[in-house]
Amino acid sequence: MTAEIISVGTEILLGNIVNTNACYLAGQFAGLGLSSYYQTVVGDNMERLKSCIKTAMERSDIIILSGGLGPTKDDLTKEAVAEVVGLPLVEDARSRQRIADYFESTGRTPTENNWKQALVPKGSDVIDNDNGTAPGIAVHTEEGRHLFLLPGPPDELVPMFETSVIPMLRRLSEDVIVSVTAKICGPGESAVETEIRDMIDEQSNPTIAPYAKIGEVHLRITARAESEAQAQAMNRPVAEELMRRFGNNIYTFDEKETMEACLIHLLEEKQMTITAAESCTGGLLAARLVNVAGASSVFRQSAVTYSNEAKQKLLGVPEETLAAWGAVSRQTAEAMARGAAAAAGADVALSVTGIAGPDGGTKEKPVGLVYIGCFIRGHVEVMECHFRGNREKIREQTVIRALNMARINLLQEK
Amino acid sequence: MTAEIISVGTEILLGNIVNTNACYLAGQFAGLGLSSYYQTVVGDNMERLKSCIKTAMERSDIIILSGGLGPTKDDLTKEAVAEVVGLPLVEDARSRQRIADYFESTGRTPTENNWKQALVPKGSDVIDNDNGTAPGIAVHTEEGRHLFLLPGPPDELVPMFETSVIPMLRRLSEDVIVSVTAKICGPGESAVETEIRDMIDEQSNPTIAPYAKIGEVHLRITARAESEAQAQAMNRPVAEELMRRFGNNIYTFDEKETMEACLIHLLEEKQMTITAAESCTGGLLAARLVNVAGASSVFRQSAVTYSNEAKQKLLGVPEETLAAWGAVSRQTAEAMARGAAAAAGADVALSVTGIAGPDGGTKEKPVGLVYIGCFIRGHVEVMECHFRGNREKIREQTVIRALNMARINLLQEK
Repeated sequence: MTAEIISVGTEILLGNIVNTNACYLAGQFAGLGLSSYYQTVVGDNMERLKSCIKTAMERSDIIILSGGLGPTKDDLTKEAVAEVVGLPLVEDARSRQRIADYFESTGRTPTENNWKQALVPKGSDVIDNDNGTAPGIAVHTEEGRHLFLLPGPPDELVPMFETSVIPMLRRLSEDVIVSVTAKICGPGESAVETEIRDMIDEQSNPTIAPYAKIGEVHLRITARAESEAQAQAMNRPVAEELMRRFGNNIYTFDEKETMEACLIHLLEEKQMTITAAESCTGGLLAARLVNVAGASSVFRQSAVTYSNEAKQKLLGVPEETLAAWGAVSRQTAEAMARGAAAAAGADVALSVTGIAGPDGGTKEKPVGLVYIGCFIRGHVEVMECHFRGNREKIREQTVIRALNMARINLLQEK
Repeated sequence: MTAEIISVGTEILLGNIVNTNACYLAGQFAGLGLSSYYQTVVGDNMERLKSCIKTAMERSDIIILSGGLGPTKDDLTKEAVAEVVGLPLVEDARSRQRIADYFESTGRTPTENNWKQALVPKGSDVIDNDNGTAPGIAVHTEEGRHLFLLPGPPDELVPMFETSVIPMLRRLSEDVIVSVTAKICGPGESAVETEIRDMIDEQSNPTIAPYAKIGEVHLRITARAESEAQAQAMNRPVAEELMRRFGNNIYTFDEKETMEACLIHLLEEKQMTITAAESCTGGLLAARLVNVAGASSVFRQSAVTYSNEAKQKLLGVPEETLAAWGAVSRQTAEAMARGAAAAAGADVALSVTGIAGPDGGTKEKPVGLVYIGCFIRGHVEVMECHFRGNREKIREQTVIRALNMARINLLQEK
């Protein structure tokens, strides 16, 4: 079966927002075994909207429309679909009640406009919206087309899609596609591609596809089969082969697992604590650790030491080290890591000092030069990195490489 | 004139990447006075691609195609355009030379495939690519349609668009559209909308449109005129009216100016230094300050104090304060701000303590409760905030409100 997306919204046409809904929905299609050949964006205009709906109905079985379900007269998606499929709009009693309840619970008063959101094409399925006032709608035509009208805000669309639309689509689809992603940190994109060139050349089902991320490469293995269990069984030997080739450089096979979560869980397992001392990353590294709910069991404090004075005062970096080698040096990174561990009484300490640019680079120490120190129970290792990109990219690459360095060193620790 | 975008790429249809090119191009259209009613995404498939190009040529004057210009046989954009407009592909000598030069400079050897990138529809304009091997192409048809074929990678597309395509489009377009954005932090989205309801109702040219951002509201004023100077003159009185209504809550009218840059520049002006003490934001606040190139003149150090022990040890928060009021309290926020200022010897200190969730909330102190302390030369103010959303959103709102609190308090300082 084929599915396509029509995103309705002038704000996308004006370039005010990025169309993340389409990306989310497209990713979901793949997992449901739906082929998708088109995506369209159109504004809140009756004629243009109708023409896009008609075109989509000529070429796809399933059409997901997002946006244009709001209470104002600009919102036309429901009206356009009703006209194209030739159904009148009627009030859905349950939706009206849910809108009344929603306003009561938030202490606000609905306006006459809001009741418009309870109108649906006659005979369609109404999909509850637990995060807003616009219900979703599923319209099934006699020609076997299935139109799903979903609200535009991602925090309404995504939960509605996962809770209600996926089960409806599963009933329509034949094949199941299951993906598993190996997340790799360490080797660069071209090194990863070279390493798996033979696997890519041989692939048909499952397929294997590399995606370059900041500081990481993700390899997505995707099998198509009649059942989820079958697809999973097809993916397994490919995943095992990747483990043989990349070993510890693969930090997870779980799409939702982040690098920082891996590290925090490893520390929990080993009952060890961690701290950080950051210069050019200015707190980003600590913020990533704290981003893991429950990080408090292994993370208590860290320092942002941007000036030389702060490095001396808070971390005890010797003035002579700074004078002899400079703030951006292997020696300073080592002293920062030792000082951070001592100050926090932590088992593990990561330190970062580098030149994120755009200014401050020299021939000997160019923009992108970063030293990462990793202290584990008395032993310090320092890694010299040369990153490319703007200030933000250099900082982000630094954070991911630092987290990974701690992870790898902890795995190797007896 | 009307313009539309056709994004070519299977990776967009599979949901592997977000279509940021379309957002970028759409935003550029607005500034060039081009109306845009459609965006399409299609895969690397000859028939489907040709059908999308034909449809676009029926309804728009200018068509920007991105992607599908690579060296492999999957890349079909050029071939599809050539067929639709009925022109043969011929080798462009200059492009061939540039490809040879590119490979020489990177020390790599071109393959036979790479020469395919030097083929262009006969009589078209070739646009240099300074960041890759695929040149851009402009095809002008007898019917007055203008097709621009651009490479897919954003770091090739964006510079090519800005350097070469914008001047070409300016020559095609009649009107100029100029926007100016008032960035507001403090009042919420509905409060801002209520305040400018009369201006929105009256608008035609310039228009005024609100955009909700995390912790901020942006108001974009847009005038359409024959010249840039005229459009700017039309925007000016609207901007002045917004200044009268929102005063200091407007932190900039510059689209590219961030909140943290405003604060850093204000501190530079006043020759004051700043530090931070963060609990739930875990370093995000400091990272935002350090994100401003040149922050080192006003920012030297800061502390992430996630545990109670760290708050006592690094900031001198009294044990009794923590015991009596808890870590998430007005009193702790005040003590943290004072302690941070003292520890860093800074003129200004921001402190943050709150419950970012998903766990840790109680009835008295629910998830989303955050106290922000702002110390300025001996005087501390504490703001109690109740944020909604997930952990990440709560942390982001906290950071922007904290930065804004320092900014507003500094402006009011004599």
